[in-house]
Amino acid sequence: MKINLKIASIVIIGTLATACSNPENEKVTKPDKNELTEIFPKGQKGSSETFTGNAYNVGLVDPDSVLTTAVGNVYFEPGARSNWHSHPAGQILIITDGVGYHQIEGQPIEILKKGSVIKCPPNVRHWHGASANVGLQQLYIVPNTEKGIVNWQEAVTDEVYKGAK
Amino acid sequence: MKINLKIASIVIIGTLATACSNPENEKVTKPDKNELTEIFPKGQKGSSETFTGNAYNVGLVDPDSVLTTAVGNVYFEPGARSNWHSHPAGQILIITDGVGYHQIEGQPIEILKKGSVIKCPPNVRHWHGASANVGLQQLYIVPNTEKGIVNWQEAVTDEVYKGAK
Repeated sequence: MKINLKIASIVIIGTLATACSNPENEKVTKPDKNELTEIFPKGQKGSSETFTGNAYNVGLVDPDSVLTTAVGNVYFEPGARSNWHSHPAGQILIITDGVGYHQIEGQPIEILKKGSVIKCPPNVRHWHGASANVGLQQLYIVPNTEKGIVNWQEAVTDEVYKGAK
Repeated sequence: MKINLKIASIVIIGTLATACSNPENEKVTKPDKNELTEIFPKGQKGSSETFTGNAYNVGLVDPDSVLTTAVGNVYFEPGARSNWHSHPAGQILIITDGVGYHQIEGQPIEILKKGSVIKCPPNVRHWHGASANVGLQQLYIVPNTEKGIVNWQEAVTDEVYKGAK
């Protein structure tokens, strides 16, 4: 009987220890670092003619003649980035989660993370996207849309993108 | 020795059981519903001449002659709200977390929550703020700042605010 009690104790200890250290439980208490906060709907997958990899765009404010401003959110999966492009009236980026990159042509690549704010001047070539291992949640604001919204250009090569590492 | 082992087993079982069910641990796995996601620095407390309760503002993009756009974040503590005010070129609000209210004068109060987007036309009186029990994280975008940014007016009375319930 004493032996049975001891065996029972060992079984209970083992069960509790397993419950406390089970990797499945850790997933609940420590969300995967690649799991980003979702504030907006994921939206539609961007065309391969303007994005490399998987990027999803949702429009939040359509441009009109009163506010003359377009707002939306892009979720870049890890490795995804925009083509090179420019905006006739410039662009503002607000990063809400994740890790990514932004580059104005001829300038160093900038690291983007939660809380980053980017201002890109009018008619300047730039690209933006996620890091290789962590995605990016990025709001964009295009002002003065009466001047135009975006002029898409060529894809960002792997060589340029890998320069971000 | 056998007794000591049994006591040790009971102590270990007790410790593991406590670790697994400790309410302190549950706090880690289930954040308080009133604990909002913080993307930006909290910023400076808004003046009591323009806000009721505690609201904190951080500027993210200062208006300039190129992008002609102001962007910032306001964190409203529960119960806090702006005074009535208007914007010469209108305003866009993007809600990133929490629960709040927005009202254009003469229209019903709208409920704000994560992902809500508000467009307020130029020179229209409105107010916005948190719900009574849950705060609000709110990005604002003021376009065409060459026309002006904001015209502050009188406080929102408790009677008007309580109409939101």
